[in-house]
Amino acid sequence: MENREKCAVVDRYVEAFATNDLGIIRDIYAAEATVEDPVGTAPHEGIEAICAFYAGALAAGARLALTGEPRCAGNAVAFPFTVQMPGMTIQVIDVFEFDDAGKIANMRAYWGPENIVRADTGSGAS
Amino acid sequence: MENREKCAVVDRYVEAFATNDLGIIRDIYAAEATVEDPVGTAPHEGIEAICAFYAGALAAGARLALTGEPRCAGNAVAFPFTVQMPGMTIQVIDVFEFDDAGKIANMRAYWGPENIVRADTGSGAS
Repeated sequence: MENREKCAVVDRYVEAFATNDLGIIRDIYAAEATVEDPVGTAPHEGIEAICAFYAGALAAGARLALTGEPRCAGNAVAFPFTVQMPGMTIQVIDVFEFDDAGKIANMRAYWGPENIVRADTGSGAS
Repeated sequence: MENREKCAVVDRYVEAFATNDLGIIRDIYAAEATVEDPVGTAPHEGIEAICAFYAGALAAGARLALTGEPRCAGNAVAFPFTVQMPGMTIQVIDVFEFDDAGKIANMRAYWGPENIVRADTGSGAS
């Protein structure tokens, strides 16, 4: 798998959120893929569980914006981005590992409480 | 292991390069650690092989600068940074996984040819 193909998957991933298109998620993940988001929590296993997870994120209005270059290495790509949702922004790094068919075999999302900024901090609204 | 402790290890890692201090590398890695840099290449296994690898990087004058927040999750931290060396800059994402003693059990560095910028590009010098 060429690095430009891995980067294209990252672009499609961002597009899935921008256009609220769960079909893209279904297309880029392998049938038996796993998603651990954040790392350290129980993974979503299999494409149906994964689509259910992303359906929730899309319904919540999440939008992604890359904050640096995707880094391709071996069968993987790691990329830094922000997740913007109503009321908060989260700084995340995702790692995709690809199978031989070019589908995402597993995804791990690195983020913690320290990476969340609430938009209403200091606004006085409560 | 608290997230602030993981972030402190990232800070010490950056400091090791800034101060050319291999003793910091020896302190933050576990004796049986592995380092895969970049991902997809044969790992350096064990603290002596790891120190030999970093001795080369320090001798080459590598300096690190974070380009975003460290992201702590589970037993790991992922962080984006640049490696500056004479003649080139590389955009990298490292992932550290820690053991129960708070030492780095394994490191994976994500970067590829697309993430290298040579300082002399277009300078006309050759």
